[in-house]
Amino acid sequence: MSAPKKAGRQSVVFKNPPRLVSVATVAGPMEGDGPLGNNFDLVLGDTLAGCSTWEQAECKMLTAAVNLCLEKAGLHADNVDMLISGDLLNQIISANYAARQTGIPFLGLYGACSTMCEGMLIAATILDGGFADYVVVATSSHHNTAERQYRYPTEFGNQRPPTSQWTVTGAAAVLLTSQQASGPAVTCATVGKVVDMGVRDPNDMGSAMAPAAADTIYQHLVDTGRTPSDFDAILTGDLGRIGKALTLELLSRSGLNVEGVLEDCGLLIYSPSRDVHAGGSGCACSGLVFCASVFPKLGSGSLGKVLLVATGALHSPLSVQQGETIPAIAHAVCVEG
Amino acid sequence: MSAPKKAGRQSVVFKNPPRLVSVATVAGPMEGDGPLGNNFDLVLGDTLAGCSTWEQAECKMLTAAVNLCLEKAGLHADNVDMLISGDLLNQIISANYAARQTGIPFLGLYGACSTMCEGMLIAATILDGGFADYVVVATSSHHNTAERQYRYPTEFGNQRPPTSQWTVTGAAAVLLTSQQASGPAVTCATVGKVVDMGVRDPNDMGSAMAPAAADTIYQHLVDTGRTPSDFDAILTGDLGRIGKALTLELLSRSGLNVEGVLEDCGLLIYSPSRDVHAGGSGCACSGLVFCASVFPKLGSGSLGKVLLVATGALHSPLSVQQGETIPAIAHAVCVEG
Repeated sequence: MSAPKKAGRQSVVFKNPPRLVSVATVAGPMEGDGPLGNNFDLVLGDTLAGCSTWEQAECKMLTAAVNLCLEKAGLHADNVDMLISGDLLNQIISANYAARQTGIPFLGLYGACSTMCEGMLIAATILDGGFADYVVVATSSHHNTAERQYRYPTEFGNQRPPTSQWTVTGAAAVLLTSQQASGPAVTCATVGKVVDMGVRDPNDMGSAMAPAAADTIYQHLVDTGRTPSDFDAILTGDLGRIGKALTLELLSRSGLNVEGVLEDCGLLIYSPSRDVHAGGSGCACSGLVFCASVFPKLGSGSLGKVLLVATGALHSPLSVQQGETIPAIAHAVCVEG
Repeated sequence: MSAPKKAGRQSVVFKNPPRLVSVATVAGPMEGDGPLGNNFDLVLGDTLAGCSTWEQAECKMLTAAVNLCLEKAGLHADNVDMLISGDLLNQIISANYAARQTGIPFLGLYGACSTMCEGMLIAATILDGGFADYVVVATSSHHNTAERQYRYPTEFGNQRPPTSQWTVTGAAAVLLTSQQASGPAVTCATVGKVVDMGVRDPNDMGSAMAPAAADTIYQHLVDTGRTPSDFDAILTGDLGRIGKALTLELLSRSGLNVEGVLEDCGLLIYSPSRDVHAGGSGCACSGLVFCASVFPKLGSGSLGKVLLVATGALHSPLSVQQGETIPAIAHAVCVEG
């Protein structure tokens, strides 16, 4: 290749940065009631969305987000080369069944709540490499499907500890292309490493994911020769209150002050008055915040350069039961207006 | 980009085909007792491999396969840009924890038994696009972890219906590079669509996956303008006896005769005398057969052009309980010696 597309240890730089054509969001009722409520394309009246099960509702949201994203771009599923998607459920059934509904050639991912960035990163390499013209990246989560899979039956009504986060109900889709010269672009990205600092509490995802977020942000800056002030915002995935504070501290120990630049999607999705304990989480958390809040600002010019760093906890209930600690990952994509 | 890298609806063609540097395999005792037993790098004495749980054993196999693959190439984990991996377990814990052990920047996939091809396809686009020099793709499965997750507690000793397949215990890794001009190469690939013909029986994966296999093979031939006779072998993932027969029939109805060219990994991994009902399955099935049997023949020249078509069933126990049918996918990579 003519120009170097590798940057340092973990980052890639796009020669012809893929553009974001359109985004679409479907949000649950509680999310619709939050500060971004007016920005979502669709807000559900209830968490079942006319389905018999929450899992079916999650799949319906994801399918709707993909279809709406294409509709906004004036495209049909036949015009799109690939759908890249994943979610939190066992065997990523939301993504698999949504892919069946849309009929778009499909690549399934599992990156927990880092899925949106993992997908955008892979999509951008495929587009910049010349292997596709249009790729849609989508993800979803649902409070009730996640709660009963990862923690307790929803009927049980257990008391949630203060460190816990609330899984966001929603779905988000982003259409990327190599066929357009204007619009927000993915200019570079950093592939995360799995980081595990020994956190064992599955009700404290923020602490488990903070080291991964700090590691990827640090590595992105080293690889690209940037400083925090080069960004209008560094937006972490869903660290919540505890994870955000830890990430600030970890970066500060590495000599990086990101105070004032670092925002966390888990703290932007719900009203401060809504008691969700440490904040929001779930694949849809960073997806909804990026699509409903950041994307419009990149388009209007009120944001110039944003580093989206979606974070994921990579344990399973079984791995925790077997005594394992919680590994985490964070992938970063830089999107410029 | 200078040359077209898209071919038809679903396929990509590599301009500088990424080369396979090395492969590594770790197999369970039953697999080691099969026709490929002498070809595996490591064969476990028992299914626990010195661990306390089968899940830990699966992760240990996967980690060992990755490390061995790098060792054969004379590389260290630090020399590898990305690990792309996935497995069958909820939240792909085998891959996540193996990625933690190796420390290589990680992209997690979920494609069920199609994972090896999905990973090689993504790795090849990343390498040919110039975004990495070395990428390792790895996958694993374990009969006992899969059995208790997807079906019944292993202690239950349920009777298996004749359509059922036996999940292969093993792990396989492939190291691909853009930095080498010789050796077997990935020349093109086809991204699968999710196909669902309404099969509801989770004990008949072959029938569920056959339509996806036929669809991807057909599409690959259409997109690339090839005929079955252009290949020394078309090797499907793990369709087993029933799925292979169905795939032959479906392709025949589309006017394609692949009899004599089509082989299935699920029918090559165990001795015919071993009663595994319809054949082998699991992510490691196509991985082990490709790495232990096909790769050496591509290197020696006894095979020239092989289409590896790994197939995956994309349901979960929960989706089946909720009345859903079983969607499936097949991804194809063409590897030439």
